[in-house]
Amino acid sequence: MGYGRQELRLVSIKEFMLDRPFQESLFACSIMLQKHMSDLLPGDFSDSKLVEAMRYCVLSDGKRIRPFLLMATANMFGVETLDTLNAASAIEFIHVYSLVHDDLPAMDDDDLRRGIKTCHNKYDEATAVLAGDALLTYAFELLSRPDTHQDAATRCDLINKVALSSGFRGMAGGQMMDLEKQDQDEISNEDLAKLHRLKTGELFMASVEAGAILGRASAADRTSLRNYAHDLGLAFQIKDDILDHQGVVEGSIELDETIHINPNKKAKTENASIVDVLGIDNARIRLKMLEEQAIARLKGFGDKAKLLRELAEFVVERKR
Amino acid sequence: MGYGRQELRLVSIKEFMLDRPFQESLFACSIMLQKHMSDLLPGDFSDSKLVEAMRYCVLSDGKRIRPFLLMATANMFGVETLDTLNAASAIEFIHVYSLVHDDLPAMDDDDLRRGIKTCHNKYDEATAVLAGDALLTYAFELLSRPDTHQDAATRCDLINKVALSSGFRGMAGGQMMDLEKQDQDEISNEDLAKLHRLKTGELFMASVEAGAILGRASAADRTSLRNYAHDLGLAFQIKDDILDHQGVVEGSIELDETIHINPNKKAKTENASIVDVLGIDNARIRLKMLEEQAIARLKGFGDKAKLLRELAEFVVERKR
Repeated sequence: MGYGRQELRLVSIKEFMLDRPFQESLFACSIMLQKHMSDLLPGDFSDSKLVEAMRYCVLSDGKRIRPFLLMATANMFGVETLDTLNAASAIEFIHVYSLVHDDLPAMDDDDLRRGIKTCHNKYDEATAVLAGDALLTYAFELLSRPDTHQDAATRCDLINKVALSSGFRGMAGGQMMDLEKQDQDEISNEDLAKLHRLKTGELFMASVEAGAILGRASAADRTSLRNYAHDLGLAFQIKDDILDHQGVVEGSIELDETIHINPNKKAKTENASIVDVLGIDNARIRLKMLEEQAIARLKGFGDKAKLLRELAEFVVERKR
Repeated sequence: MGYGRQELRLVSIKEFMLDRPFQESLFACSIMLQKHMSDLLPGDFSDSKLVEAMRYCVLSDGKRIRPFLLMATANMFGVETLDTLNAASAIEFIHVYSLVHDDLPAMDDDDLRRGIKTCHNKYDEATAVLAGDALLTYAFELLSRPDTHQDAATRCDLINKVALSSGFRGMAGGQMMDLEKQDQDEISNEDLAKLHRLKTGELFMASVEAGAILGRASAADRTSLRNYAHDLGLAFQIKDDILDHQGVVEGSIELDETIHINPNKKAKTENASIVDVLGIDNARIRLKMLEEQAIARLKGFGDKAKLLRELAEFVVERKR
C-alpha cells in the first residue's frame, strides 16, 4: 500500500473536499477510489484471467461521478471519506459491470470504452460476461462486510437500495427498455425520460441515497438529495446527447484515424436522443433548467452542499 | 395467492418434511418454492419482456436441490419452512442466473435446458444476459429484506456467504476456469476437482450454510454441514458425468428426433469428465465413497439429518 490508513486520516474532510477547487476534490476522490479498488481486486489471485479482466475494466479511466456523489453526500453529514470507500467502490463496480455487459456484441456492440478496448474486445465475450457477473456479485459482498459499516441494519439498507436501483425495476430494466425501443419507429418524450431515469437516474439516486444512509440523514434530507440526483441524472444524459450531437462520445478520447473501429459492427437503429426529440436549442434550455432545479433542491443544506452544487455545474459544463 | 400464510403454518415441519417419503418432501418443497418465486416475479410488471424472461427461466422445471438443501438444513434447527422461502428463492435465482449465462453462445452454446429452449434461444442473447443480471441482483435484494430474517446481522451473513460462493472466488471463477481448461489438452485430477468445487460445490456449501445461518447453528455444526455439502457437490457432479456417459443429459427430457438441435453449435472441446479421467468403474466407486463420506459427516445430528441423508442417496441414485 502506498499510504496507511492513519496517514490518510490526516487529510481530513475539510481539507480534502471543501477548501479546494472542485476539480481537485473530484480528482482526489478518484485517486483514493482507484487505490481502494485496486486493493480490492488482488492482482495475483489464482491462475485465472477473470480477475485480470475485472481489474482491466474497473481500473481504466473514468469520471467516477457515481462514487463521487456518494462520497460528497456522506461528507455533508460528517462521514470520513475513508469510511465511504467500500460503498463507493461497490457503486462503481456496479456501474462498470453495466458498461461491460451493455458493450457486448448482443447489446450495443461497442469496440471502445473510455478510449481503450472494451472487455470482450480485449479478452472475449465469455470473459466479459463473467467479469461483469463477478463485479456485480463483488459489489454485494463488499456492502455486506462489517468494514463497510459497523451497523448491520445500515449495510442491509445500502444493499437493498443499490439492488433495487440496479435490478429489473431499475438499471437492468432500463437497458431492456432501451433495446426494445430501438425496434420501434419512434419514442415519446415520456418514454425517453423514463428510459433515462431507469438507465442512468436510478444509480445516481442510489449513490446519493447510499451517502445519506452512511450519514444517517433524515428522511426529508434523503428526499431532497434523491430529487437532486434525479435531476442531475437527466442533465447528465442530456449533456451526453448534446456532446454526441457535437461528435464527441462520452468518456472516449479524441478519435483519430489510427483507432480501429469494428468494421463488422451491425448498423443498429439507435434510439432517438433528446436532441433529436427537442432540437439542440431546446435541449440546451432543458439542460440549464435541470441544472438550476437540481441546485435548488440543495437549498436547505447551505454551504455543506458546495460539492454537489459544483458537481451539477461540472456535469453541465463538461467537454466530454 | 392460492393459500394463506396461516393455512400453510398448519402444515408443520414434522408433517411436511420428516414423516413422509423423501420424494414427497422434495416435491412439497419444490411446489412451495415455485409458488413463492412466482409471487416474487410479478407477471404484470411493466410492458417489458425482462420479467417475462426471468419468469420463463425461473419457473421452468428443475430439481431444486440447492433450495432444498437450504430448507432441509434450516428445518434441522427448527426453522419453519415458510421462513426459509425468501433465502431459498435467492439461492435458486442465483443458480438459474448461472445456467442462463453459461448457456449463452459465447459460453457453452446450449439450445435446450431442462427440456425447453434456453433463454437466449427463446428470446435473444441480450435478453438472456439481462435476465441473468436481474436475477442475480434480485437475489441480493431479497436477502437484504426484513421479511427474509428479522435480524439484519443474520441477513448480512447470508449475503456475504452467498456472494462469496458465487463470485470470482467461487462459481464465476469456476466457470472461467472451465472455459480456460477447455483450451488445454488435458486436465489433472486436482484441477478437475477444484473446477467442480468452484462451479458446483461452492453454491451447495452456501445453501447448507445459509440454512445453518437461519437456524443459528453452532460453528461446529456449520463445519460438519459444509463438509457434507462439499462431498455432496462432488458426488452430484460425478453422477452427472456418469449419466452423461450413459447418454442422458442432466435435467433434459428424453431426446427424440423432433427436437431441433442447433446446427450452428460450435464443436467445442469439452472438458474431460471424471469418467474420462477415472474410467466408469472407478467413477462409480468414487461416487459410492463420496455418498458414504457425506452421510458420515451427519453422524452428530442423529434423526434430525434424515432429509439430508436421503438427499445424498437421491443424488447418487437419480436417473436424470
